[in-house]
Amino acid sequence: MENGGSTITIKGILSLLMESISELEDEEGRCVKRVISLGMGDPTLYSCFRTTQVSLQAVSDSLLSNKFHGYAPTVGLPQTRRAIAEYLSRDLPYKLSQDDVFITSGCTQAIDVALAMLARPRANILLPRPGFPIYELCAKFRNLEVRYFDLLPENGWEIDLDAVESLADENTVALVVINPGNPCGNVYSYLHLMKIAETAKKLGILVIADEVYGHLAFGSKPFVPMGVFGSIVPVLTLGSLSKRWIVPGWRLGWFVTTDPSGSFKDPKIIERFKKYFDILGGPATLSRFRINFYGFSSKDTNITDESFFKKTLNSLKNSSDICYDWINEIPCIDSSHRPEGSMAMMVKLNLSLLEDISDDIDFCFKLAREESVILLPGTAVGLKNWLRITFAADASSIEEAFKRIKCFYLRHAKTQSQTIVDL
Amino acid sequence: MENGGSTITIKGILSLLMESISELEDEEGRCVKRVISLGMGDPTLYSCFRTTQVSLQAVSDSLLSNKFHGYAPTVGLPQTRRAIAEYLSRDLPYKLSQDDVFITSGCTQAIDVALAMLARPRANILLPRPGFPIYELCAKFRNLEVRYFDLLPENGWEIDLDAVESLADENTVALVVINPGNPCGNVYSYLHLMKIAETAKKLGILVIADEVYGHLAFGSKPFVPMGVFGSIVPVLTLGSLSKRWIVPGWRLGWFVTTDPSGSFKDPKIIERFKKYFDILGGPATLSRFRINFYGFSSKDTNITDESFFKKTLNSLKNSSDICYDWINEIPCIDSSHRPEGSMAMMVKLNLSLLEDISDDIDFCFKLAREESVILLPGTAVGLKNWLRITFAADASSIEEAFKRIKCFYLRHAKTQSQTIVDL
Repeated sequence: MENGGSTITIKGILSLLMESISELEDEEGRCVKRVISLGMGDPTLYSCFRTTQVSLQAVSDSLLSNKFHGYAPTVGLPQTRRAIAEYLSRDLPYKLSQDDVFITSGCTQAIDVALAMLARPRANILLPRPGFPIYELCAKFRNLEVRYFDLLPENGWEIDLDAVESLADENTVALVVINPGNPCGNVYSYLHLMKIAETAKKLGILVIADEVYGHLAFGSKPFVPMGVFGSIVPVLTLGSLSKRWIVPGWRLGWFVTTDPSGSFKDPKIIERFKKYFDILGGPATLSRFRINFYGFSSKDTNITDESFFKKTLNSLKNSSDICYDWINEIPCIDSSHRPEGSMAMMVKLNLSLLEDISDDIDFCFKLAREESVILLPGTAVGLKNWLRITFAADASSIEEAFKRIKCFYLRHAKTQSQTIVDL
Repeated sequence: MENGGSTITIKGILSLLMESISELEDEEGRCVKRVISLGMGDPTLYSCFRTTQVSLQAVSDSLLSNKFHGYAPTVGLPQTRRAIAEYLSRDLPYKLSQDDVFITSGCTQAIDVALAMLARPRANILLPRPGFPIYELCAKFRNLEVRYFDLLPENGWEIDLDAVESLADENTVALVVINPGNPCGNVYSYLHLMKIAETAKKLGILVIADEVYGHLAFGSKPFVPMGVFGSIVPVLTLGSLSKRWIVPGWRLGWFVTTDPSGSFKDPKIIERFKKYFDILGGPATLSRFRINFYGFSSKDTNITDESFFKKTLNSLKNSSDICYDWINEIPCIDSSHRPEGSMAMMVKLNLSLLEDISDDIDFCFKLAREESVILLPGTAVGLKNWLRITFAADASSIEEAFKRIKCFYLRHAKTQSQTIVDL
């Protein structure tokens, strides 16, 4: 029991923050302030983000049909795999087949599958910083070395491709791209994605494209799947229903070989994929129920209405704009980049304006205790003295949270004379 | 991509057998005979094995309640963990707490968790032969050496504990006990289980108790959970809803530290368990819905009626008796042991009575092609020239399957003169 013990997890930090709040009670043991968490990307906590009734009913009907209680292939039911292949193919210049698609327990398990399948002695993988800590945790459990390249805030959080080139060596197996970006809220342009593909090709490594926020782009740039460049470099596309369909708890994700040149079609590789899925216990239950009601198949009548997706994008744009405007009102936090996608953004903490805050972790714990507002310290995603703010919340909660953050700032701000002394 | 490639899987062999059948068509392309599979333990294929309507309705209600779409702890919801702790505690001389229970994607993922958590350089694990091949596949992926001890057919498939003692060394981490037995259909006595616990204690190793068929005992011996001996030796109990509630496709299993002496309560071990669950992507969705309707909690009104469990046991006893009687009618197969539990049994193939059958695999492929009956070659579970027969099927299918097996035998039997020549 050696590896994986020391890695920070988002859930770990958030639950510590939550515990520090629950101590704040009035004399009668009631919580003084309503807790507002902008710490975790779970939109289901707010009623403005709710999946469609047609989806629920279709799943319930399938359940009650008694047709889906038995064993299914551990890689997923053929009809589920086919529906996802069709869904993803819509945005690609080639067609995926159902054999390219493997069903996982959310995008998290898709990450683990990708890393476990690429692990071999001395191998290393290149990860973005800031990023998503589950990659590092998986890599530790699967004995894969991790190397970090920076995302550049001044370039809209684009990947520092020079750093990628200097980090890679003959044992590098892949590069991870998260787009739309978590935690940065950015969306990569077609041109930048093509440059990433060409860099990976030059280095002879794969691209792991984490598109769990796929299609959640509400700025000027459209979402372009990395698989568009699959003929330049083999891409492993990871995704899930979680964010776009607002059902993270359903644990329906996918691991997809987006690779028209067929690098993964070696029978030994396919056999190994299948055997690995055999030990995972099979995909989450709902993948056994009907999935094509999700708008994945044009043949189905129970498809999710486009207006559902538009409503989500409008809500996210609105709430991210409120965040952005408030951030400009509060001197100690700064965002150079207006969010264009996903459900989170990074803001920089200016500690020199604060009197008694030592770092991002101290900021978040004091904020939680004093204001019952939860933000994620940037340290948890690899960027010290930044904060990750999730904007998948309703407008009034965001307004209330930022009012409290402003009060918190004013209470901890250095006086002007102190600032001068510091200088 | 080195390990795990060469291991035989039950599903792999069964699908090859199934493919060999589909070629058998009449001139108009119709399948000549209805396929009867006694190859895989999936009772849902037969209408006499069906889960209760109350379970389905409760899950559906939970789904439609919109309360379970968000993220939940990756180790499982507290109420689910509590319900399973209560359920398992009923048969133990001590109480489990919800912290002892971790929710998995069926028992298969519980196996992987156990092996991944025990793996370390040079470690080995002791597995039963015949057994369940997923153990070996997991061990290969997690870099754990496997060593096999025999189950003794002449002693009701008890574990050869002398072999266990001679196999174990300072790098042995655990011993696997599957009870009720898959693939043998046996049920261990209280006394034998106690001897297993004492042997493990003497060797300083853990017991992994695979109780996926827990409570499915219909012979003279009652089911005794290994956790009863948890004060002698720490036990990891693996189980699931799959078999007793007849919902294998729901993928709701558990990994439980059945260990009153608290060996697993080291905060570092618990932390490592939790982090490992973080990378697994979280439990199957249905564990997020209400589970206590399953008769797990005495407080719930929607509990599964005892008569449901009795009906299953009666059906299994009836169908295993039909198998046993038929086996005595067919000279080339032999069962020394009448099934007492689980959903499968092992029968020995007497190749000396057959003219043109080279081994168990040849027997099963010819039987599939000629009679459209699927049995599992014993080789797939570690015992060459035996067969595994699953009796989780309705009586008429079993009767029909054995009629065809008898025809197959008669067609391939040596004539008396040939037998004498052979002598």
